[in-house]
Amino acid sequence: MIYLTRRERFSAAHRLFQADLSDQENLDIYGPCANPNWHGHNYELFITIKGKVNEQTGYVVDLKKVSTIVKEKVVNKLDHKNINTEVDFMKNIMASTENLAVGIWNQINPDIESLGIKLHCVKLVETENNSVEYYGE
Amino acid sequence: MIYLTRRERFSAAHRLFQADLSDQENLDIYGPCANPNWHGHNYELFITIKGKVNEQTGYVVDLKKVSTIVKEKVVNKLDHKNINTEVDFMKNIMASTENLAVGIWNQINPDIESLGIKLHCVKLVETENNSVEYYGE
Amino acid sequence: MIYLTRRERFSAAHRLFQADLSDQENLDIYGPCANPNWHGHNYELFITIKGKVNEQTGYVVDLKKVSTIVKEKVVNKLDHKNINTEVDFMKNIMASTENLAVGIWNQINPDIESLGIKLHCVKLVETENNSVEYYGE
Amino acid sequence: MIYLTRRERFSAAHRLFQADLSDQENLDIYGPCANPNWHGHNYELFITIKGKVNEQTGYVVDLKKVSTIVKEKVVNKLDHKNINTEVDFMKNIMASTENLAVGIWNQINPDIESLGIKLHCVKLVETENNSVEYYGE
Amino acid sequence: MIYLTRRERFSAAHRLFQADLSDQENLDIYGPCANPNWHGHNYELFITIKGKVNEQTGYVVDLKKVSTIVKEKVVNKLDHKNINTEVDFMKNIMASTENLAVGIWNQINPDIESLGIKLHCVKLVETENNSVEYYGE
Amino acid sequence: MIYLTRRERFSAAHRLFQADLSDQENLDIYGPCANPNWHGHNYELFITIKGKVNEQTGYVVDLKKVSTIVKEKVVNKLDHKNINTEVDFMKNIMASTENLAVGIWNQINPDIESLGIKLHCVKLVETENNSVEYYGE
Repeated sequence: MIYLTRRERFSAAHRLFQADLSDQENLDIYGPCANPNWHGHNYELFITIKGKVNEQTGYVVDLKKVSTIVKEKVVNKLDHKNINTEVDFMKNIMASTENLAVGIWNQINPDIESLGIKLHCVKLVETENNSVEYYGE
Repeated sequence: MIYLTRRERFSAAHRLFQADLSDQENLDIYGPCANPNWHGHNYELFITIKGKVNEQTGYVVDLKKVSTIVKEKVVNKLDHKNINTEVDFMKNIMASTENLAVGIWNQINPDIESLGIKLHCVKLVETENNSVEYYGE
Repeated sequence: MIYLTRRERFSAAHRLFQADLSDQENLDIYGPCANPNWHGHNYELFITIKGKVNEQTGYVVDLKKVSTIVKEKVVNKLDHKNINTEVDFMKNIMASTENLAVGIWNQINPDIESLGIKLHCVKLVETENNSVEYYGE
Repeated sequence: MIYLTRRERFSAAHRLFQADLSDQENLDIYGPCANPNWHGHNYELFITIKGKVNEQTGYVVDLKKVSTIVKEKVVNKLDHKNINTEVDFMKNIMASTENLAVGIWNQINPDIESLGIKLHCVKLVETENNSVEYYGE
Repeated sequence: MIYLTRRERFSAAHRLFQADLSDQENLDIYGPCANPNWHGHNYELFITIKGKVNEQTGYVVDLKKVSTIVKEKVVNKLDHKNINTEVDFMKNIMASTENLAVGIWNQINPDIESLGIKLHCVKLVETENNSVEYYGE
Repeated sequence: MIYLTRRERFSAAHRLFQADLSDQENLDIYGPCANPNWHGHNYELFITIKGKVNEQTGYVVDLKKVSTIVKEKVVNKLDHKNINTEVDFMKNIMASTENLAVGIWNQINPDIESLGIKLHCVKLVETENNSVEYYGE
């Protein structure tokens, strides 16, 4: 079993808040991340898949196919976008890094599996100090 | 003459647009950076000052003083903010990296000079691929 | 289950030696790390916790709370200190990266658990070439 | 149980191709990686071993011993070499990152085990966007 | 005057040698870099241009235009290629990092100037330890 | 004229203090850097030289020669050492990053010039946030 990781990047705006709370209540819970005027990040996304090496090709999978899936299903929807208002798979979902990692997993998992491999991990780095990993369960 | 560099960081939202142009015209000029719903970045800021070493202290300047100036005059105004709508020194100024670097220089230069040293360079890294330097003229 | 990682940093001095061995014997075992006059490192510390996402907040936990625990129980005790002589939880313990990672785990584990989450991994990077991970058992 | 990781580096040339296919067929499968005139990379290699801390030394193992094994059995054979034509343990094996990681595992595993520790992971980073991990099975 | 830097990357094979010297003589001068079977690197290229900020657009220049020039005139010719045998602008030129930086400058300078800006610096990073800068004279 | 940069690294202990001041006075000036029990850093050193490209070799200079000078005159004296008490060229000199950069320049400049090239810059990175550059005057 080999694990392959592909890095992709996107820059997006977001804010953390609960719609049924006041600005002050959201500020108490989320601090400056609740700013109603938005802020943003350069996100780094590490997609790890696993599978056996094909003896003929020497590949588990052509990583370009993984990259294409991630770009079409994730990066193109998030890059230079507002995560709260413009991203279909994050509608009505708190735009936290945790939820975003789960959303990304669900976006790409069917297409990854259709390549005959398994999605192993979605790692999302929000800043050099904060990151999240999700393994599908 | 010694050059000292202090790195600070902030995460902010912005968009690139000219208020007197249509959304389509702005999109033609600025591409996805013109998105009216904002996007954002993790900015890295490198502030370089220059001066002579004080023989007694072994310092050009206590870098913590430089850090304090940059935090008070720049980072606290930009971090987790919307550059276009919330930052006093960027009001009515295109929120491009170029203009932001010049604005940061003007924000901190008087306080840096009051320490008896010279501001040499403001370097602003918007993404791992794009950065700007401004030397004050 | 989501894994969240927070990075913190500290700079400290240390040496590797056994008190009941001669300087030469320590030099034979630990090489230049045994230098009786100390040396030091910029340590990078990656604390990974795991838990379920709170549906209301979208958080596993507020990472600032994790950061506060790590700063109070670890970073404030280690940063700009001598690991061998000044750090209470390393008293009479060889100041190796292995032992330091275990010590850090023990320092923060009770407070992390009191947040209703699990400590998953303490990763300690001593140099760009050497690092250690401890998973609590 | 502690996990220790040592980073080593090498720069090498390679190409991806199957000898019984035409240049065009290889190009169809491997894209520009099939270029018959070679290309190359700066590879980063992360070797993770695991074991218990020796109470007397504070070490799981002296990482310099791990480094020596990796240099002798892997880096010296790969650095500034052509992976396809000059590396004994890659003879008649597709020079993919997957196969190279497995080959490196097999090269160092006996010597690592002879130190009384276990090899846990071989991670090979081909570019900042692509990497592979192999855990021995 | 503002300085803008764009990073691009390419992976290539090369060797250092003089055609009129023996393999042994080349080995004496260039060490393992003379290996007749090639080796390779992941090169990082930092292109710095300078100019005044256009008051209307807030840009010195659209960095995407710089990126397009660098990709067409440099990256597409070098990426996944053999620098010694396949790169038109390096024909009959020693494939040293120094010469490559000068060659890249000459490749892009006319197109950069046609944008109404000045090329300031070509920085080429061959490994994390070795890099070259060329300022056009 | 080409600028070549070589990176070297060392890990060392130091403290900032003036011998004729009390511990409290030093603490007031230098903060935790004055800790009498030492602290330490992983220093990154970037040595930039400049010269013309030799048409025959394609080199300004063999960077390995620069590396050898820096290792013999600087790294071997500093790595795993106490800068205040064990480094001949820092005796009776405040162990600030500023003074260390100047000391390093003076250590290597004669040998660099004997190679027929010029030393251009000594850059010393103490932490990811703090660095110093010295250009020889």
